[in-house]
Amino acid sequence: MMKLLFNYLFFALPVLFTACCNDVQTSGLKKNEEPVFARGEKVVSENFVGTVWLNYLAENDTTFNVNIGSVTFAPGARTNWHYHKGGQILLVTEGKGLYQEKGKPVEIIEKGQVVKCPPHIEHWHGATSTDTMTHVAIGTNTNIGGAVWLKHVTEEEYDSFR
Amino acid sequence: MMKLLFNYLFFALPVLFTACCNDVQTSGLKKNEEPVFARGEKVVSENFVGTVWLNYLAENDTTFNVNIGSVTFAPGARTNWHYHKGGQILLVTEGKGLYQEKGKPVEIIEKGQVVKCPPHIEHWHGATSTDTMTHVAIGTNTNIGGAVWLKHVTEEEYDSFR
Repeated sequence: MMKLLFNYLFFALPVLFTACCNDVQTSGLKKNEEPVFARGEKVVSENFVGTVWLNYLAENDTTFNVNIGSVTFAPGARTNWHYHKGGQILLVTEGKGLYQEKGKPVEIIEKGQVVKCPPHIEHWHGATSTDTMTHVAIGTNTNIGGAVWLKHVTEEEYDSFR
Repeated sequence: MMKLLFNYLFFALPVLFTACCNDVQTSGLKKNEEPVFARGEKVVSENFVGTVWLNYLAENDTTFNVNIGSVTFAPGARTNWHYHKGGQILLVTEGKGLYQEKGKPVEIIEKGQVVKCPPHIEHWHGATSTDTMTHVAIGTNTNIGGAVWLKHVTEEEYDSFR
């Protein structure tokens, strides 16, 4: 039952282990240079490598059947390999990052780009080694299940896009 | 059947009648000042008042069961009253706008704010009279239906927030 509950929400695990301090660094920026959403809290989770922040915009519920979070990856940070039982759509809102589906080459993803991760397709996403990347992650069909987390992305896999 | 098809997609009607010219005006802006998503195309539809642009980020399908569009309202522009059979979530990405549910006061919504429009609740959204407002509109549970469009928002209703 507890396992089911964990899997139900895309961000359940990282949220449970987030650090308590907000790490927004927007002072000194003009209003139109500020990121759309605050960075939120640092994620401390075995499902990620590197420094990652999460701002939870909409928690899963049975009314909308989606969950939405703004996720920021520091250079070099990335998710583990994982898949979503109900799928996920990423809207890149800042910077430049990487996305890879199992068996396909690593792709560069940039501000303004939309990435659709179909249900049950293994993939990972994160920042490039030199850029910070932020995306809004929309977990879809959460009524049929959430994320299933797998192995770390190896340095060899991460570097294979060069 | 055709009516069903129209109602199925949140943006179906405006998209069918969009003008053919792209009206993005981002030249001269530094990269981090540019809007996250291009404005897209001008919407020509009876379901809106004023100048509105739509950039379709994800069309409805039976895999993800959502549709996603970035919608920009010029000052004074707004939707008609409407409701969503499957609900909708708005992520305000630029500027300042207005949101009202039937029987409740008009609320100001701003960059960074998240608005949840539950299924079957009549509401409207748009820009203030002096600001441009952009939001990402996520139509949820599109497998159970889309938007149902109603009357124009009167000037009296629009001005009631002052």
